[in-house]
Amino acid sequence: MPDTEQQSVGIVQTQRMHFAQPLALRSGASLADYELVYETYGELNADRSNAVLIAHALNASHHVAGRYADQPDNVGWWDNMVGPGKPIDTRRFFVVGVNNPGSCFGSTGPMSTNPETGRRYGPDFPVFTVEDWVHAQARLADALGIERFAAIMGGSLGGMQAIAWSYLYPQRVAHCVAIASTPKLSAQNIAFNEVARRAIITDPDFHGGRFYDHGVVPTRGLQVARMIGHITYLSDDTMAERFGRLLRGGAGYGFSFDAEFEIESYLRYQAEKFAKYFDANTYLLITRALDYFDPAQGHAGDLAAALAGTAADFLVVSFTTDWRFSPQRSRDIVQALLRNGRDVTYAEVDAPHGHDAFLLDDPQYHALLRAYFERIAEEVDAGQTATIEAIEAIEAIEERA
Amino acid sequence: MPDTEQQSVGIVQTQRMHFAQPLALRSGASLADYELVYETYGELNADRSNAVLIAHALNASHHVAGRYADQPDNVGWWDNMVGPGKPIDTRRFFVVGVNNPGSCFGSTGPMSTNPETGRRYGPDFPVFTVEDWVHAQARLADALGIERFAAIMGGSLGGMQAIAWSYLYPQRVAHCVAIASTPKLSAQNIAFNEVARRAIITDPDFHGGRFYDHGVVPTRGLQVARMIGHITYLSDDTMAERFGRLLRGGAGYGFSFDAEFEIESYLRYQAEKFAKYFDANTYLLITRALDYFDPAQGHAGDLAAALAGTAADFLVVSFTTDWRFSPQRSRDIVQALLRNGRDVTYAEVDAPHGHDAFLLDDPQYHALLRAYFERIAEEVDAGQTATIEAIEAIEAIEERA
Repeated sequence: MPDTEQQSVGIVQTQRMHFAQPLALRSGASLADYELVYETYGELNADRSNAVLIAHALNASHHVAGRYADQPDNVGWWDNMVGPGKPIDTRRFFVVGVNNPGSCFGSTGPMSTNPETGRRYGPDFPVFTVEDWVHAQARLADALGIERFAAIMGGSLGGMQAIAWSYLYPQRVAHCVAIASTPKLSAQNIAFNEVARRAIITDPDFHGGRFYDHGVVPTRGLQVARMIGHITYLSDDTMAERFGRLLRGGAGYGFSFDAEFEIESYLRYQAEKFAKYFDANTYLLITRALDYFDPAQGHAGDLAAALAGTAADFLVVSFTTDWRFSPQRSRDIVQALLRNGRDVTYAEVDAPHGHDAFLLDDPQYHALLRAYFERIAEEVDAGQTATIEAIEAIEAIEERA
Repeated sequence: MPDTEQQSVGIVQTQRMHFAQPLALRSGASLADYELVYETYGELNADRSNAVLIAHALNASHHVAGRYADQPDNVGWWDNMVGPGKPIDTRRFFVVGVNNPGSCFGSTGPMSTNPETGRRYGPDFPVFTVEDWVHAQARLADALGIERFAAIMGGSLGGMQAIAWSYLYPQRVAHCVAIASTPKLSAQNIAFNEVARRAIITDPDFHGGRFYDHGVVPTRGLQVARMIGHITYLSDDTMAERFGRLLRGGAGYGFSFDAEFEIESYLRYQAEKFAKYFDANTYLLITRALDYFDPAQGHAGDLAAALAGTAADFLVVSFTTDWRFSPQRSRDIVQALLRNGRDVTYAEVDAPHGHDAFLLDDPQYHALLRAYFERIAEEVDAGQTATIEAIEAIEAIEERA
C-alpha cells in the first residue's frame, strides 16, 4: 500500500483570474467584469500539451485535490483521483480545477456584488447553461496558455461540461471523459430538481432571492433541497446496507416525528451541514443548468447530429446502481458517438453506490481511469518527443545553414 | 361495452359510528370517545358472509365508490374496482370502506376537538400504527355484525392493513388481498417520508402542529411533501411518456425558475390541489405509520414467523414498474406465506404506471381481481347453501319433534 500522504498533491493555493470582457450567455444576457477562482496541480509541460481540465458538479468547486495550509481538513473533492501516482497522475499531467460562474465558492455568482447596482446580484444574476460555463472555462484556458487539453473530465454535471466542450471546441479537446452523466435530464430528474427549487423559493427566508439584504438564509428550504438530492445520489442498496431500518435509540419506536431511524438523522445531519455553506440562489441556478442541458434539442432531438462535429476520443463510464443517471443514458451517448465514427471506450462499472460512485474509489473504476490516463500520458509523451525531434531537426537545419 | 353509469354503485351516503370505549394504541396512548365515518355498498347476506373491507392508503378515504348527491364529481377513489359488474361486484358483495382514525376525511383525527382540552388535537393526537387502525376497523366490524370478512383488501398502505388483519385476527379474514404493498419500508422509503415531514414541520405556518389556532395552513410544506410523494408514485417511464422534456411555452427556454417544463407545472398543480384539502398533521401521522409497519420486527426479523398464525388465503399483486414498493417486496411476502403453507396466489402485473398502477384499470390487473373475487363469491354462495341446508335440517328436526 502506498502512503496516502505521499500521493497527495499536498498544500494547494486557490488562484483568481479577472475577466474584463463581458461573457455573452445563451439566454441573451451577459455577465460583465467577472472573476473565476481555480487551482492547478502538477506542471504544464513545454509544449503545453499535458493539461487536464476537471469540471465540477452541483455542489463541488475548483478545490479538486490537496488541502489548504490554514484548513488542513478541507481536502479536495476528487483527491482520490488526482495526485502523484493516482489515476490522474500529477507527475505527468497539469490539472486545472475551476469554479464555475454562478457557483458559491469564490467565482462571481449570486452572492457577488453587481457592479451596476452596488448590491449583491441575488436573483439578478443571469441564468447559466452548461455551454455558458464551457465558454467561461475556455477563456480561462486562453489566459493560462492552454490551446488544447489532453483531457477534459467530469462526473454528472461535470460530464455534461466535458461533452459540451467536445462539440463547442472540438479542436481543443483530445480526450473527453464523461462519468455518470447523461445527454439530458428525464422528466423524473427535472421533477426532483423542481421540488428542491420549490422548497427554497417558498421558504419565507428566501425573500425572492434577496435574503442577503435581510440578513437571513433560507435554511429550511436548502435543507429539504439537499435531502431530496442526497436520496437520488445514493442507491437503494447502499441505503439498505448502511442504514436499513436501524433505530437510533435502540430497539423500540418512540412514537414521534423526531429522527428515530438512522437514515433520518443521517439526512438531517447532511442537510444541516450543506445549508451552512451552500448558497440558495446557486442551487436554483445549477439545477436549472442541469434541466436545460440537451445538446440534441437544436438538432430535432438527434443526439448523433448534435455530436457530429466532435473530434475527441471519448471515455464514457456509468455505474450499474446509478438510478439518477442510469447506464442507459451513458449508452445513449456512446451510440450517438459511434454513429459518428468516434473512438469511444465505454465501461459500465458494477458498483453498489449509486450516482455517488463517481466520487468514490471503487478499484475497478479507478483501475479503468488509471489505464485510460496512462494511454493519454503516452500520447502526450509521444507528441512531446515529436515536438522535440522537430525542434532538433530545425536546429540541425539552422546549424547547417 | 357496458354502460359505465350502470356499473356504478350510484349515489352513496357516508355513515358515522361513535365509539365510547377508548381505543388502546401500540404506543401506550389511547384514543377516547372517537367516531369513524364509513360507507357501504351492496347488501349484507343472511349469514353475513359476503362482506369485503377496503382499507385506504395515504390520501384516500372511506369514499371508495359511487358519488354524493350534492357532489356529483366526487367519485370514490376505487370506483373502477367496486360496483355492480366490476371486479368486486356489489351485486354479490357487501363492501365496507372506512376512514381511519388520524385521517382527515371525517373520522376523529388531529383536526377534531380533543374532549379533554376543548381544543383541536393537533400534535396531541396520538401516533397510530397500522395495527391500531386494524383494531379500530375490527370494532366497526363488530358493530356492523360482521364476524368474518370474505376478503380484506388494500393497495400500498391499504395492503399493509389487510396483511395486519391476517395476523391480528386470523379467524376473521377468509381472503387477504395485498396489492402493491410491502412487509416493511426500506431506508429509501423512510428517507422520502422524512423529507416530506421536514418540509411540513419546518414550514413556519405549521406552528408545531397548532396551525389551526393561528388560522393558517402550512401550505408550502404540504405542497413540497406532495410533490415528493407524487414522484415516487409514478414510474420513470410514465413520466417520460406523459411529460418527457415538453415545454409549456413551446420551443424555447425562458431562462427562469418559473414552471417551464410540463412536468413542473403538473407537479405544482397537483401540489396546490392537495394542500387545499389535506391536513398537515395527518400527513405526518400516516407517513409515520408507514415507517413503523414491520411485522417481522417482533420476530427477530423473521417475516415467516410473524405470519405463522395467519389462516387466510392470499392474493398478492405487484407491478413491474413500481419502484416505491417493488415486486421483490411482494415476493418477500409470498415466500413468508408459502413457508407457512398458506394458499397464495401471486401476480406480477406488467404495467407501466409505477406504484399508482394499483388505482388504475389495467385490463390484466382487473381481470385477475375479477377472477379471484369470482372464486370468493362462489365460496360465499357455497357457504350460504350449507347454512340454508343446516337451517332447513334443524327446522325439519324441529318439525318432527
